[in-house]
Amino acid sequence: MGEKFLSERNLKFLLYEVFDVTSLLQYPYYAEHSRETFDMVLETAMKIGMDLLRPKLEEMDRNPPEFVDGHVKVHPAVRTFMNEFGEGGWISAIAPMKLGGQQIPRMVDLIPNFIFAAANYSTSAYLILTTEAARLIESFGSEEMIETYIPKMFAGQWQGTMALTEPQAGSSLADIITSAEPTNQGYYKIRGQKIFISASEHDGVENVVNLLLAKIKGSPVGTRGISLFVVPNKRIDENGELIFNDVNVTGTYHKLGYRGCPINQLSLGENDDCRGYLVGEPNKGLAYMFQMMNASRLLIGLGAAAIASAAYYAALEYAKERPQGRRLTSKDPTLPQIPIIEHADVKRMLLFQRSIIEGSLSLLFQCNKYSDLQIVLEGEEKEKYSLLLDLLTPVAKSYPSEMGILSVSQALQCLGGYGYCDEFSLEQYYRDVRIHPIHEGTTGIHGITLLGRNVTMKNGKAFQLYLEEVQKVIRATEDDSELNPYSLELRNALEKLRDVTSHLIDVRNEGNTELFLADATLYLEFFGIIAIAWQWLLQALSVQKALKNKDGLSEADANFYQGKMYTFRYFFGYELPKIEGLAKRLLNTDGLTVEMKADLFSD
Amino acid sequence: MGEKFLSERNLKFLLYEVFDVTSLLQYPYYAEHSRETFDMVLETAMKIGMDLLRPKLEEMDRNPPEFVDGHVKVHPAVRTFMNEFGEGGWISAIAPMKLGGQQIPRMVDLIPNFIFAAANYSTSAYLILTTEAARLIESFGSEEMIETYIPKMFAGQWQGTMALTEPQAGSSLADIITSAEPTNQGYYKIRGQKIFISASEHDGVENVVNLLLAKIKGSPVGTRGISLFVVPNKRIDENGELIFNDVNVTGTYHKLGYRGCPINQLSLGENDDCRGYLVGEPNKGLAYMFQMMNASRLLIGLGAAAIASAAYYAALEYAKERPQGRRLTSKDPTLPQIPIIEHADVKRMLLFQRSIIEGSLSLLFQCNKYSDLQIVLEGEEKEKYSLLLDLLTPVAKSYPSEMGILSVSQALQCLGGYGYCDEFSLEQYYRDVRIHPIHEGTTGIHGITLLGRNVTMKNGKAFQLYLEEVQKVIRATEDDSELNPYSLELRNALEKLRDVTSHLIDVRNEGNTELFLADATLYLEFFGIIAIAWQWLLQALSVQKALKNKDGLSEADANFYQGKMYTFRYFFGYELPKIEGLAKRLLNTDGLTVEMKADLFSD
Repeated sequence: MGEKFLSERNLKFLLYEVFDVTSLLQYPYYAEHSRETFDMVLETAMKIGMDLLRPKLEEMDRNPPEFVDGHVKVHPAVRTFMNEFGEGGWISAIAPMKLGGQQIPRMVDLIPNFIFAAANYSTSAYLILTTEAARLIESFGSEEMIETYIPKMFAGQWQGTMALTEPQAGSSLADIITSAEPTNQGYYKIRGQKIFISASEHDGVENVVNLLLAKIKGSPVGTRGISLFVVPNKRIDENGELIFNDVNVTGTYHKLGYRGCPINQLSLGENDDCRGYLVGEPNKGLAYMFQMMNASRLLIGLGAAAIASAAYYAALEYAKERPQGRRLTSKDPTLPQIPIIEHADVKRMLLFQRSIIEGSLSLLFQCNKYSDLQIVLEGEEKEKYSLLLDLLTPVAKSYPSEMGILSVSQALQCLGGYGYCDEFSLEQYYRDVRIHPIHEGTTGIHGITLLGRNVTMKNGKAFQLYLEEVQKVIRATEDDSELNPYSLELRNALEKLRDVTSHLIDVRNEGNTELFLADATLYLEFFGIIAIAWQWLLQALSVQKALKNKDGLSEADANFYQGKMYTFRYFFGYELPKIEGLAKRLLNTDGLTVEMKADLFSD
Repeated sequence: MGEKFLSERNLKFLLYEVFDVTSLLQYPYYAEHSRETFDMVLETAMKIGMDLLRPKLEEMDRNPPEFVDGHVKVHPAVRTFMNEFGEGGWISAIAPMKLGGQQIPRMVDLIPNFIFAAANYSTSAYLILTTEAARLIESFGSEEMIETYIPKMFAGQWQGTMALTEPQAGSSLADIITSAEPTNQGYYKIRGQKIFISASEHDGVENVVNLLLAKIKGSPVGTRGISLFVVPNKRIDENGELIFNDVNVTGTYHKLGYRGCPINQLSLGENDDCRGYLVGEPNKGLAYMFQMMNASRLLIGLGAAAIASAAYYAALEYAKERPQGRRLTSKDPTLPQIPIIEHADVKRMLLFQRSIIEGSLSLLFQCNKYSDLQIVLEGEEKEKYSLLLDLLTPVAKSYPSEMGILSVSQALQCLGGYGYCDEFSLEQYYRDVRIHPIHEGTTGIHGITLLGRNVTMKNGKAFQLYLEEVQKVIRATEDDSELNPYSLELRNALEKLRDVTSHLIDVRNEGNTELFLADATLYLEFFGIIAIAWQWLLQALSVQKALKNKDGLSEADANFYQGKMYTFRYFFGYELPKIEGLAKRLLNTDGLTVEMKADLFSD
């Protein structure tokens, strides 16, 4: 396994040069920080990633969670990691200081999350679930709840989860039937089954706190009757002791990858003694849960980009060291072979990966910046960033997830036969990264969210704001002679986005909802490519700014900026043209997939 | 695991309706056959696939080959299968009758190979390697060799392999260093190492016959000095006993998938006692080996399509049975949920898979038809089919291999979280199918073969013949009012293919070889999509012919033809437009990947 699994230089480039995180320091909420504290976050996280998490990557894959005597045993390293995540303040980093957090901007918190996921993806799941579950309690829970759960969760002693899916209710949350029966003692009796719940029991922590969706008896049908509960695996009794809360694990899944973290099935209230504590008001559970879901979605996108980054550096190392073949211009077999990185096709495969990873990362920084700003701003500005974040969340989740698979697959391909064997980590990355288009909402669901909800919400306001954001970058680059051709390309792409969107909205306005959304997944792909092109042009703008001071550049920096420009040009030359075929398809609303009958698939 | 893993109806459609296999019966070589014998091949192969191979699919994956005491142990079922492949005449089916074969056309032989690969991919590898290794001996070996090896191989008692790759020579076969030292006793002493050799030792057979490339001492450098040898793991001594031939297995790989068949490392001549028997003339080994390589390439493409077929039927079954969500037009949560196959997005995913699988299969039938015709024709006709086969082999290998991965991935996606878990076979198919773009030449190599060699060979003659083949189908469909719009689309696509090709040839003629071939992999993808569109139009033509007799159609047949037409329309509506972006890229020979320096990849 190679040393390098991500580019620290690129993280700093995005954080400081492209997204200027220090501009946040002007707001009182972030004012206690400085570039020095942010640098230290990166440095410390790198140390943990390299020294602690990464050495266990393969071992945790080869020794997946086991279901023994009704409990889930995980690799012993998980306990060490959770301790470190707690003691090091990684779980609480973004939380307010008054709760023991550090009020770190999400833009900065992205960095440890990326590093940990690139080092050992499964491990990062324990952390982010705990952070986001605690934040949900913080946002909507009572004071008592906050005091009871948050300190333990921030300390890494109690694991957080999100417990949504049930056997009959996956994508369709309206159909959950886990029930909550009120008692007169301040809690609800929970009964039901939850499946596919990550980290919902394991022996790396003392307790697990499930943020669980259920229906209070008599509540409205569908999503309007969903409430949010805290359901700990162990509850605190009168004596302050942790006792069994009738949360029963019935099994853990055997998975293709992501094997360092268990995904379990739970049966709640088998002995009629599972207590759930209502978070906020009844029947508002789904709206609350969206806070955690949306935050997690960005983190899933980030996780996919992180795995792709680790795979890229493994492929790069191999490509530099593996001699095979000769230049096409001098195939004399008496000459020594050249490293495969000298072949244009291998360089193309590497540039593909890099353009996906760094483009995705940039979009994720952008979303996190919107998130950070909406916290500290008010009124129209707050709404603006909140709408932009909302609009882009399905894109920032799905683009890295879908393209991450292809990126890792190309990395594996760079190693030829060795990529297919477990001497190298590529085959593990290939298995690990396949989950991302599934968990936290499938790509199909995100397509429908983007086109069916986000693009049209508030009369298209978010979409308009987005177009303006992209146009701002186009305007900033069109006078730069080097960037101008790309600026024009993006302008044309944006025109296509507008055409396709208005065509589809016409279809909707004609009342044909099924036709309107039939190709929503492809619309998401189309939208995503253009969003990443926007991010690449934004990055190129920062590169051009840096290059104005050419004389002061170190060789490493000069190489970095040059590599960036090649990758930027790669994206515009190879990836952006993919919108041509997609636009052609999306404008052709012939209803093929709506019409096709189930009976016709068999032969 | 579902019952259905392929469509027999579709195999018959392609064999009889589209490619009219019975037209071959006019040639004396095939004259002893009839539709009845072909039907029986299908029927018997289905029985073996279902009853014998498929039940071992998961078991063989979960219990991969083990390297114990210097030998490779495989699942005990392998011996049963090899016996059946031998006794049932499956290994020898295409061989001439004079050698104990049946002179079955390759078009027909495609059927058992597809069925066996769809039932249990790893298993099919043992079979096809033995068939093609035996055919190589038959084509270029001595009478004695034929007598010694072929009967044992046809009986399934001796395994065949192709032993090409060495630690320093994978894609670059010019660099093999395994040496062959002549003796005066009719054999050569072989010394060297071979890696990544499928089935090169296992306990499911008595012996293994490696068709091995090596260099005779003093031969020319590079590919011109490569000779072909038969190197059995055990040789026959003076008493007719099988004795150790100093072929030492040094390990077996732990692989992502394809775990039912071992891939081994061999060390030859460690005790200076490894005997190799020269096949044909010295220094012509690579040319000979191309017979086996090219035949295997079509079979690799077929294997990928077969795995994708099994995955498709698993996804289809799930999609029909899994209730989730409601129609977008009536989201009333009090209504029962609908099976997910009712959602347009799921139908799109299924049509995608089907269009890939059936389009690929059609191209493979087409190639096999060319192969069958070149055997029985003479002169210009023979050359024509031989050139077409040569031209299309990289496409028929790579399109199914690359798209098969995406197809299986979409099948897995149809199952959501369940697709990621090993309760269903999807995760295994996903692992199994990933090898296809690697073995028998990576996709990158095939891109260079197609553009750098095949398109331009004999002054572009093969390419011209291909254009005529496609135009023939365009002309046959343009008068049909239903097919005419698609006919026009294909005409435009063919125009694009001509433009892109002539642009690239101009680049080559300017002397810039690296630039010419920089995007050869994308050219292969571009070429592949158009080739599959051609095959879909050809299939649609047969459907239209069948529908002229509408009244006589059974409901099953009517559904089949209607489903075909939807899938055909899907391909033209969703897949063919992908050439737009590819053409844009391919016409932009900016040299980005040629220029990019290795140093610039690090950050």
